[in-house]
Amino acid sequence: MSYALGIRTEAGLVMAADSRTNAGPDQVSSFRKLHVFEKPGEKFIVAAIVGNLSLAQALVAELRSQDGRGRPKKGYDLLDAPSMADAARMTGQAIRALEAQDGGALTKHGVAFDVTALIGGQIGKERPRLFQVYPAGNFIEASSETPYFQIGERKYGKPVLDQTLNGDAKLGATVRAALLSMDATIHNNATVGWPADILALSRDQWRPALLKRISAEDPYLLELRRRWADGVKDLLTSLPDPPGLAKKNGATGPG
Amino acid sequence: MSYALGIRTEAGLVMAADSRTNAGPDQVSSFRKLHVFEKPGEKFIVAAIVGNLSLAQALVAELRSQDGRGRPKKGYDLLDAPSMADAARMTGQAIRALEAQDGGALTKHGVAFDVTALIGGQIGKERPRLFQVYPAGNFIEASSETPYFQIGERKYGKPVLDQTLNGDAKLGATVRAALLSMDATIHNNATVGWPADILALSRDQWRPALLKRISAEDPYLLELRRRWADGVKDLLTSLPDPPGLAKKNGATGPG
Repeated sequence: MSYALGIRTEAGLVMAADSRTNAGPDQVSSFRKLHVFEKPGEKFIVAAIVGNLSLAQALVAELRSQDGRGRPKKGYDLLDAPSMADAARMTGQAIRALEAQDGGALTKHGVAFDVTALIGGQIGKERPRLFQVYPAGNFIEASSETPYFQIGERKYGKPVLDQTLNGDAKLGATVRAALLSMDATIHNNATVGWPADILALSRDQWRPALLKRISAEDPYLLELRRRWADGVKDLLTSLPDPPGLAKKNGATGPG
Repeated sequence: MSYALGIRTEAGLVMAADSRTNAGPDQVSSFRKLHVFEKPGEKFIVAAIVGNLSLAQALVAELRSQDGRGRPKKGYDLLDAPSMADAARMTGQAIRALEAQDGGALTKHGVAFDVTALIGGQIGKERPRLFQVYPAGNFIEASSETPYFQIGERKYGKPVLDQTLNGDAKLGATVRAALLSMDATIHNNATVGWPADILALSRDQWRPALLKRISAEDPYLLELRRRWADGVKDLLTSLPDPPGLAKKNGATGPG
């Protein structure tokens, strides 16, 4: 499994992804799932890709204009997209091209065609936008009503997002919400794991305000987790008891 | 789906269960899933039962010594159990008897034999104990290391338990943790729904310190949710920014 999320706010965009891939509990390794496409001062696009690792890697290669050895190649180039909606559409087309190429062979071997992408970023003066692209190549966009998308193991990390996110959250607070969401997920599902990559993009900057690989021993993560746990415990203790809860001393029972 | 949980602490025991049952999204109704078995001053046992509704109801009937019209009946009687471990074993035996009786017919109709119970309570001077009984009739017991069990839709409501529970939590704080866990779950899964039943048992009381049906409009629930949401938001805002996060004003980029 994997966990990746993207959050769109007025201040910009935050994206994060874990790095664990596994084929069974005894075959675990670490691969980057967050990929940056950048044209300084003009375009900044981040793709978080989860699913079958061979498909995720093929998709990233498909979306880059160079073949990895610096030679230009034919096909898709995410940095050619004139808008973020075009970037999402191009990602969907690249996924469909992959399915046309590999889907049949995978099906023959009982492997699902499983690849999902979050595509976020800012192109030109458009505000930062966030899309989720499905294995069928169709896509949806985050809105002010639902400013975030999660892919992979979504459930454990959702409540903290619902509780803390709002449209006018500062970028730093949004980064913390994303890290706490990642931490809750990794704590509860052994197939999601540190290190995680986290990226914050300020609106109209076209370059990351933060792009960092966070290990399980990262001092900021440890401090954040400790202070969050302490604060949440204190908060729960400070709230009033439910009406009607019998106190042990005042009870008339046999104890 | 359903959500039920039990939490064992030094102070006693807290159990809660939602009330929604559904057969498809257009066939939704409300049934109690928390059932009390009580012999004042001696035994207090609570069963939270989820799964196929006909099996859950049959199991409760099976575990009661009377047939619902006040007439004694043969079979199992949870209040005969000399210890909580015996109560869990008896529940497992009753589940196996149900499977022997109904399992074949259900399988023929493509219906899974699905019934799971949390059995908590205190018998005599033994400390309050908590068990989870599986559809196969086998069972496990909560320990100080893992003081709670969840059944049904577990994931959304787990982080708040992990963050706030510890062995020496007061009963009131444990009730709040259970309600917040239920609230996160109901918020995120439309097949889990209010009202929920919540029960708190103080050690050596053999009667509930709290036994309440909580509706979606319960004033305490609304207040708890609001103060929790505010507190959690304030907490997140108060925590430090990650090191290296570029401030927009200080950035040297084109924005």
